[in-house]
Amino acid sequence: MMDADHCIFCRIAAGSVPSRRVFETPHAVAFLDVAPLADGHTLLIPKRHYVTIDDMTTEHFGEVLHDLPRLAMAILRTTGAEGYNLLQNNGRVAGQVVEHVHFHIIPRFANDGLGYRWNAKSYAEGRADDLQKRIESALAIG
Amino acid sequence: MMDADHCIFCRIAAGSVPSRRVFETPHAVAFLDVAPLADGHTLLIPKRHYVTIDDMTTEHFGEVLHDLPRLAMAILRTTGAEGYNLLQNNGRVAGQVVEHVHFHIIPRFANDGLGYRWNAKSYAEGRADDLQKRIESALAIG
Repeated sequence: MMDADHCIFCRIAAGSVPSRRVFETPHAVAFLDVAPLADGHTLLIPKRHYVTIDDMTTEHFGEVLHDLPRLAMAILRTTGAEGYNLLQNNGRVAGQVVEHVHFHIIPRFANDGLGYRWNAKSYAEGRADDLQKRIESALAIG
Repeated sequence: MMDADHCIFCRIAAGSVPSRRVFETPHAVAFLDVAPLADGHTLLIPKRHYVTIDDMTTEHFGEVLHDLPRLAMAILRTTGAEGYNLLQNNGRVAGQVVEHVHFHIIPRFANDGLGYRWNAKSYAEGRADDLQKRIESALAIG
């Protein structure tokens, strides 16, 4: 895990690295992604350093995301997008590159070629039952 | 927009349609996706009906998402996944099928073939400046 001095998003949050900032609250900063997937692609990040959202307390998670609905609305109005994806990647295997929690707001337009690779399956007999019980148990303990 | 009687996720939240529920709070329900992209693919939904997150108040948004970090942790522990994507689609153009807000938690494993189609671009001269100003203005007004 990087410390704040070496984390690019900590430095953006602190203002020591410039960004196209659109929004700031006591807990979060939002700015345009420098390598956008779409016009208006925006990142919302906590000011504090966390690698993944499961590192965050529930309270702080709510504080960071508090204004996301109105940020999304502002991006929709500005870009004229017909929809958008909210995407947040945890871990390198999940596509996370910068190891500081960030929420992508990705405006979507018809035939833009974007989206999640969808490859739905079904559960083998008994597996869903097993998962349900084990996730419930993990929540009761955790 | 569908009314609650005809919305499958409203009916799941109310318990009138069965689901593999793993979690419930006063504001939200989480259950296993019936057509999973990965072992343990889970949906978190608000009990109240909203089509997209920009329809939600900031307060309610925070309430619905409050326990997502510990839900994600429980799914990680249970599945042994190395990471996960949080994905939420707004609008048909963005891949939304059920018109009731839902957050996908998609466990990720090496070489699983999943992920977002990434096709980064750069902004033409002046465009990022323009967007930054306009999103800021929309937030000040909205």
